[in-house]
Amino acid sequence: MSALQAFRFGIQIAVYSDRPENEPVQFMTPHSYSGSFDDVDAIVEFAKDCDVITLENEFINSAVLKEVQAKSGTPIFPSPESFALIENKLIEKQTFENAGIPVTPYKIVTDSIDLKDFGAKYGWPYLLKSSKGGYDGYGNETVENLSEATSAFEKLGGTEGHDILAEGFVDFTHELAVQVARNETGTVVYPCCETVQENHICVAVLSPAPVDESIQQKAQELAVKATEAIKGKGIYAFEFFLTTSGEVLLNESAPRPHNSGHYTIEGCIGSQFENHVRAVLGLPLASTEMIARAAVMINVLGTYNRPAESDHIFEGLNIYDAHLHVYGKLQSKVGRKMGHFTLLGNDLAEIYLIAKKVTESIEI
Amino acid sequence: MSALQAFRFGIQIAVYSDRPENEPVQFMTPHSYSGSFDDVDAIVEFAKDCDVITLENEFINSAVLKEVQAKSGTPIFPSPESFALIENKLIEKQTFENAGIPVTPYKIVTDSIDLKDFGAKYGWPYLLKSSKGGYDGYGNETVENLSEATSAFEKLGGTEGHDILAEGFVDFTHELAVQVARNETGTVVYPCCETVQENHICVAVLSPAPVDESIQQKAQELAVKATEAIKGKGIYAFEFFLTTSGEVLLNESAPRPHNSGHYTIEGCIGSQFENHVRAVLGLPLASTEMIARAAVMINVLGTYNRPAESDHIFEGLNIYDAHLHVYGKLQSKVGRKMGHFTLLGNDLAEIYLIAKKVTESIEI
Repeated sequence: MSALQAFRFGIQIAVYSDRPENEPVQFMTPHSYSGSFDDVDAIVEFAKDCDVITLENEFINSAVLKEVQAKSGTPIFPSPESFALIENKLIEKQTFENAGIPVTPYKIVTDSIDLKDFGAKYGWPYLLKSSKGGYDGYGNETVENLSEATSAFEKLGGTEGHDILAEGFVDFTHELAVQVARNETGTVVYPCCETVQENHICVAVLSPAPVDESIQQKAQELAVKATEAIKGKGIYAFEFFLTTSGEVLLNESAPRPHNSGHYTIEGCIGSQFENHVRAVLGLPLASTEMIARAAVMINVLGTYNRPAESDHIFEGLNIYDAHLHVYGKLQSKVGRKMGHFTLLGNDLAEIYLIAKKVTESIEI
Repeated sequence: MSALQAFRFGIQIAVYSDRPENEPVQFMTPHSYSGSFDDVDAIVEFAKDCDVITLENEFINSAVLKEVQAKSGTPIFPSPESFALIENKLIEKQTFENAGIPVTPYKIVTDSIDLKDFGAKYGWPYLLKSSKGGYDGYGNETVENLSEATSAFEKLGGTEGHDILAEGFVDFTHELAVQVARNETGTVVYPCCETVQENHICVAVLSPAPVDESIQQKAQELAVKATEAIKGKGIYAFEFFLTTSGEVLLNESAPRPHNSGHYTIEGCIGSQFENHVRAVLGLPLASTEMIARAAVMINVLGTYNRPAESDHIFEGLNIYDAHLHVYGKLQSKVGRKMGHFTLLGNDLAEIYLIAKKVTESIEI
């Protein structure tokens, strides 16, 4: 969706993908490149066709990015150096902790003694995460006891030497998210929104988050601080837990447009995609102010494993100030994010009910 | 810009162009076709790759469209039948006049007696127009006397048998425009806006038009009536004169997204491009309500004849609720529409001043 914003500035785009399936953005340009995210030479070839490169995922190693930038001469934003500070979950935690940002309890675990000790110290269940490459709960395992911990550790590659992070569960009342755009012209921060998760997948976003304004501001402050800590140039999303004791803990970060900010396309004066493009081009950043009092975004998740086709998807279009996005992914998969539905209005609770109702019948 | 909206619905696009220069939309798809607008076979080949076809200009004859639709089996909206009712300026005038819509005085002129008589009846100067193919003043000539009329008639192809329309000048206080979207699910009408023209080229659009609400409503009513008269399915723009005596006269129509509606991208809940796509797909239409009290759109016109590059174009981005669109045309030409700048706010006069000021220094 950053491509659509680039087009609005008259910018041509080229895309490099590592997926066997044609990605939606590959239908938006005559300039498509495919290859592995480890193949420096292939990425350099692509880079030579570009004036500037940005990322829509975090699957390329910062070392590869650095080499590509050096060999091609094409700048990459967020920069490889900035990216290196958050590219794996351990370094990410340390970076933010060093900047004085409260994070959830964590430890690198290397054997069954570590697994046992972590449970003893922070309680069962807890989370095991591969420190690189996961998203939306992929690469995450909840473990209830040592036996589950041992098999999850193996499943995540711990026995093959992959870094595995243990993370303590936090009792929280809300999961929050804040997007920040930053470049040499300044920093802008979006409203603090709530993300609603089911089975580790974001199903809905409510903005502004239905929490005290002081909590919203706290999350925004931490998000800005985190962006500064990584010397960010681009658009970033930060996810927080609001704990039952009222603390705001940083959970995860993403150096790219994020699902939690999709509502900003219609909900804010400048969307996260517009500020992504503006930020990496060094342009002044757009206002992040909301256009409506409240915005709700519902993810349209795959309901079948099949080539993508949909039913009842357009029914919500009858509703005032409703906005549908279908991503054009070729293959549907149960739980895969196939699109999203945004509803703007005055009353958050009311529009959330309406949005859930009109999207629940979608088959895709 | 309709392509960008199609992408939001997960739709792949293909484009057929008759221009030697690569058009911006050709950089937004791997599926580009080039050829003449008279070449039925070539257009049929393109049509076979599409599920539905729509138009962003009116340069193809309705007879060609009809043949393409029949041979390819691909539906075209606006339909060739509907398109035939407005494809040349004479038929257009007659269609609307028959529907009871007041139009400017006109007559087909075939010789110098006609040219002289028209001047005698409606006064000098008047306009001569080729009845097909003109836009933005191309194909229009203002004639002050019989000698000028005679040479303009020849220049426009009158002596080669092209239909030439004479149109009386109307004393007006404002030029107004209204966009209408219509399909089998209903009809929606945009606010009545004012178009500001210089040398027959639209330089700015102000919405809502700074005229009495009764006048705005009159123009909206006539625009809906006109859309119904041509059994429209798609997005249409209608341009009106508000005469010094307070009449609203239909001047021109366009069966496509129109420069006068570009402000709707940020200015309205659903843009003219979104309703274009929704209309041709038979989807429910989006609300046309304005998001702000006032919107101003300034066209960024070419200031040089050269390969497109620009200076000072991003300066307006510092302004609150300002939105820039650069079309990505490869070649700049003095007066060519290279992009536009939209500013939203509360006070029309105030934002118009600001928008003019920040765009006047653009060099492109």
